[in-house]
Amino acid sequence: MQAVEAVIEKRKQEAVRVLEQLLRIPSISADPDRKNDVRKAAEFVAGQLRDGGVETAEVIATDGHPIVYGEWLGAPDQPTVLVYGHYDVQPVVDPAEWTSDPFEPVIRDGKIWARGSTDDKGQMLAHVLAASAHLEAEGRLPVNVKFLIEGEEEVGSANLGTFLQAERERLACDAVVISDTAMYAPGIPTLCVGLRGIAYVEFTLKGAATDLHSGQYGGAIDNPANALARLIAGLKDPETGRILVDGFYDDVREVSEEERAPWRQLPGADEGFLAASGVPRLHGEEGWSVLERVWVRPSLDVNGIWGGHVKPGESMTVLPARASAKVSMRLVPDQDPKDVAQKLEKHLRAHLPPTVTLERFRDLHGGSPWTTSPDNAAVRAAFRAVEQGFGKSPLPTREGGSIPIVADFQEVLGAPVVLMGFGLPDERPHGPDEHFDLGNFHNGIRSAAWYLEEARKAGAELRGTGAPS
Amino acid sequence: MQAVEAVIEKRKQEAVRVLEQLLRIPSISADPDRKNDVRKAAEFVAGQLRDGGVETAEVIATDGHPIVYGEWLGAPDQPTVLVYGHYDVQPVVDPAEWTSDPFEPVIRDGKIWARGSTDDKGQMLAHVLAASAHLEAEGRLPVNVKFLIEGEEEVGSANLGTFLQAERERLACDAVVISDTAMYAPGIPTLCVGLRGIAYVEFTLKGAATDLHSGQYGGAIDNPANALARLIAGLKDPETGRILVDGFYDDVREVSEEERAPWRQLPGADEGFLAASGVPRLHGEEGWSVLERVWVRPSLDVNGIWGGHVKPGESMTVLPARASAKVSMRLVPDQDPKDVAQKLEKHLRAHLPPTVTLERFRDLHGGSPWTTSPDNAAVRAAFRAVEQGFGKSPLPTREGGSIPIVADFQEVLGAPVVLMGFGLPDERPHGPDEHFDLGNFHNGIRSAAWYLEEARKAGAELRGTGAPS
Repeated sequence: MQAVEAVIEKRKQEAVRVLEQLLRIPSISADPDRKNDVRKAAEFVAGQLRDGGVETAEVIATDGHPIVYGEWLGAPDQPTVLVYGHYDVQPVVDPAEWTSDPFEPVIRDGKIWARGSTDDKGQMLAHVLAASAHLEAEGRLPVNVKFLIEGEEEVGSANLGTFLQAERERLACDAVVISDTAMYAPGIPTLCVGLRGIAYVEFTLKGAATDLHSGQYGGAIDNPANALARLIAGLKDPETGRILVDGFYDDVREVSEEERAPWRQLPGADEGFLAASGVPRLHGEEGWSVLERVWVRPSLDVNGIWGGHVKPGESMTVLPARASAKVSMRLVPDQDPKDVAQKLEKHLRAHLPPTVTLERFRDLHGGSPWTTSPDNAAVRAAFRAVEQGFGKSPLPTREGGSIPIVADFQEVLGAPVVLMGFGLPDERPHGPDEHFDLGNFHNGIRSAAWYLEEARKAGAELRGTGAPS
Repeated sequence: MQAVEAVIEKRKQEAVRVLEQLLRIPSISADPDRKNDVRKAAEFVAGQLRDGGVETAEVIATDGHPIVYGEWLGAPDQPTVLVYGHYDVQPVVDPAEWTSDPFEPVIRDGKIWARGSTDDKGQMLAHVLAASAHLEAEGRLPVNVKFLIEGEEEVGSANLGTFLQAERERLACDAVVISDTAMYAPGIPTLCVGLRGIAYVEFTLKGAATDLHSGQYGGAIDNPANALARLIAGLKDPETGRILVDGFYDDVREVSEEERAPWRQLPGADEGFLAASGVPRLHGEEGWSVLERVWVRPSLDVNGIWGGHVKPGESMTVLPARASAKVSMRLVPDQDPKDVAQKLEKHLRAHLPPTVTLERFRDLHGGSPWTTSPDNAAVRAAFRAVEQGFGKSPLPTREGGSIPIVADFQEVLGAPVVLMGFGLPDERPHGPDEHFDLGNFHNGIRSAAWYLEEARKAGAELRGTGAPS
């Protein structure tokens, strides 16, 4: 590993140049106008893999954005590690909220600022560059490695499930490694052993047949925007923060005291959330700490709401015919996304006033919650690798976000999943001024390189891991 | 009047052609990109006045859109009638909701279909064409007439008040006639003796400093869109329809049993509102009929609501930093728009959870409610004129809409206002498929022509009317 570490050190600046090139490609998967850019990003990642020595790397078409796949299988007696990541990025809602151009990376304060830097281009590239370093130093990898880098993670990974099913033989592996999560704090390397799931719905209330004059009809008919406000207000208890959808908590699993205890020792969680978010005061479910609220308790949020005339400063006297909302719920084990979406629809229909109709209800996407055991061989190898990469033993935590595909990996490939996150909680993965710490990028490349070595050491035990624990 | 009526009859088709020309000009006052079109419409109206014999007609610049002014003062011993109208129109929210192009008028079923047809180009032109007919038939008008046609009615008449104040001498008159309201129903000509006022506000709640990832923060902080829903839901009692803003009803004047009684005889009001609006069920304040809810009771409606990601079908997992709403309240005598807007702001601040801030509250515009007495000489002349024009005595009603400038006319010019509406309630003045009945257009021209004659007959009594009764 000394030679590998030396290559990583030597290529430190070049690694940043490669990341900058990828960040310049606006691969927004949600934007149909960016289809070509998304493809360009895929070609770039495949090119990096090939240049680094993973010669089989190719861009595979799907019904949506393409998948990049490459494998190095020169260690037949060793375990096989599958690296998953994504090269697509979130949209930019308002460029004016960014300090610099979201697609022209800038380095300030030891961080690189650009859309996709922490989510997930930087973290994903750490693995690509780690494999390149092994191949440059040793001409081979310690274990077999398969790279599966998709372009639809930010829009629900619609085509990855099909690909996994169709290619389960080709993708067979002993561990799946993903770097798309955050460390607990700077200097506290972290391994994530649990993710929340998600149920994301959109619905539209309809009142009148068309928009009407608020003077001629105001007072005589219900207004779907007012009705929408009442329905949304009724989804949560404003005092206790409890979600009022009937049966919502039925399948929520108890969290062990053993898992909760170390989190209580973590200093400054409240202050950290306050500072990172900028809210005047934290708010959440009674009886749980802020970390628990985000890590092991479900939530419900409006992600979008719209209806009527929305141009600021104008006073159009319209009584809107329709009002719509996007509502998502973050889920914890053992809640099921489809079941929860149905419960919400049932709740809305039960509380719908007779003065409006539920014109449309769409279950836009869902992802199952996930947990793994820290005793799993694949996870233990990761603890050792991150300790080498960051010089400090990582903390087992959970994450409030969702990577729906994690549960799919465990189910379809029967392989344990390791979430080795190099991001930081305030790096704004979906907001303006997204950035990524370059120190963590560097230690991430080292951790990724060490993981391949630790997987080799785990050898037979890892190969026998089989189904997730 | 026989000669005048003959000219109106002879020019019947030509009147429609003139209206079509004006409707083709997309004079949307709310849209800065339509500034030139708004001006074009002003020039067209001034041109029509001049062509019809009101040679002084000119386009007068203001700080916003221009005012058209023209006068014929050839009857020094007679009363002076001021005709007010507007040539600007509402925006077109979604052209796809229109059966035909909103700015390419089409005649179907005896109606003309286009944005601005009933509100207010058609109704306003009736007076211009009536004066032309008098001048063509007799070479003079029965009374002095002043035309004041503005281009900012749909955006709150921001500059008309200043103009009225500055030009009060030039605009001095004995009656103001406005046709910008609706008849009660087809075949029931109507004179409107009361209008609701309006208080229109816009406000924004702020939670986090920027949009955040709903996975990383969902459950830990309040969401301004959820908070907005709670605040809006709390503005009205869903059962009784009562507005819960503290002190909201303090200044609401009793409506006399004498005024309410005839409205109870009007058939089919509920059915009419149901059919015209297309709602599944009517909804309003307990204890009042649907006409009373719209005519003599105040209301509160969301005119627009927005926050977060609003593209249908997309599932962006954003926890929005801000959520905003436009809320307007229709007011009745003696509510004051500024006072009511302040009460709403106070209510919002009192009920604002400490987890979000009220980033901005704007009182966007206000208009006072208005009533007149049916015994006023100017109003009695109108009853006689409409009876001649439509062949049937008109019904005294109220309207739910607001014409903020009406109260200004009474106050600044000290002249009584007559609301002689030729529209129909289902002509969708602010919605898609706006249209105007051509039979009512024709009878409107006749009524407007008769009004000048009836004003002459009222003579001294009208000149002595002075302040409004």
